[in-house]
Amino acid sequence: MRIITVSRQFGSGGRELGKRLSDELSIAYYDREIITDVAESSELDEEYVERILETGGVSSFPFSFARSFAFVDVNQQNYAKMLVAQQDFIMKLAGKGEDFVIVGRNSDVILKEFSPFNIFVHADIESRIDRCIDRAPESEEMTRREYERRIKQIDSARARHRSFLDDSPWGRMESYHLCIDTTDKEIKSLVPGLAAFAASWFGK
Amino acid sequence: MRIITVSRQFGSGGRELGKRLSDELSIAYYDREIITDVAESSELDEEYVERILETGGVSSFPFSFARSFAFVDVNQQNYAKMLVAQQDFIMKLAGKGEDFVIVGRNSDVILKEFSPFNIFVHADIESRIDRCIDRAPESEEMTRREYERRIKQIDSARARHRSFLDDSPWGRMESYHLCIDTTDKEIKSLVPGLAAFAASWFGK
Repeated sequence: MRIITVSRQFGSGGRELGKRLSDELSIAYYDREIITDVAESSELDEEYVERILETGGVSSFPFSFARSFAFVDVNQQNYAKMLVAQQDFIMKLAGKGEDFVIVGRNSDVILKEFSPFNIFVHADIESRIDRCIDRAPESEEMTRREYERRIKQIDSARARHRSFLDDSPWGRMESYHLCIDTTDKEIKSLVPGLAAFAASWFGK
Repeated sequence: MRIITVSRQFGSGGRELGKRLSDELSIAYYDREIITDVAESSELDEEYVERILETGGVSSFPFSFARSFAFVDVNQQNYAKMLVAQQDFIMKLAGKGEDFVIVGRNSDVILKEFSPFNIFVHADIESRIDRCIDRAPESEEMTRREYERRIKQIDSARARHRSFLDDSPWGRMESYHLCIDTTDKEIKSLVPGLAAFAASWFGK
């Protein structure tokens, strides 16, 4: 079984790379399904689950959410519940014995026993801000500085969450098999070569 | 012109990877030629040049070398001379306009204006010690601990020398386009995939 995990800096194009890589290799890609399953099994709203899991909880909640300690407490409990449900679901995926690509969610750590090929995608901050602006809905009005702050917040949260699960630090070369710089690169153009590298990694 | 630079942790197999990659791509590989040229143009003994350039000056000199300040001083001058001669030679190579692979020597920094594809090769310390032991001459009797110390010394020197030339730190993901973990990997097996990735990088 060949499992490829893609971890990434926010805005580096890692999700697109993961999706395209799975297409190129004709293997499964897991992303949205995880959110749906987690929402169902934790009995929470899907959009709410997505928002929290994708941003590691730093997403700007409506202020009413955090107005009382009781509410904050519920959020923390929900978050823990989601993480457990997510981990269960990821292990179930691996249990099927099929090849797949999975993006984020500390899958590299969670799936360690299956010897996944672990990729990390990064880019310089300007290029990450550009990618965020390119894909933002028209209604989103944020300055480059605000994007930068947001990107760094999300990445810090990702680093923190990984640190609960494993000693190897998030976003450091030593923690991954392959780190790719996507600065000024079209993701699509890298995929055929990356697919070939993955094939070499698994010994074809 | 496609230039590929390979930087590496000592013992990670980076040199082998660079050589094999150039064979796979049927392009030139520069290594020994640089030493010969530097020795000639700086009028120094080839073996002496190799030793110093390869280890960044931390190689265990016969003690007599460092016995007086005068001698230490000469070494420093020689070292600076070698670095300048090396840099000149590397720029001359690029001036030829042909594709090539070059290992080490801060080539990624020196050749920046030619937009090289910059690879960094790393591995965990145990696997690097194993590689050193595998390729050591029979006469070399060092403990694993001594190897570890030596590896770290050489890598620190490499990091220090890079810092003279550029702000981007040695051995950090952000400074390279692709970082490859060779822990427990046979270098040979990674090369076809890496060659394909390089082709993608340059847009074929």
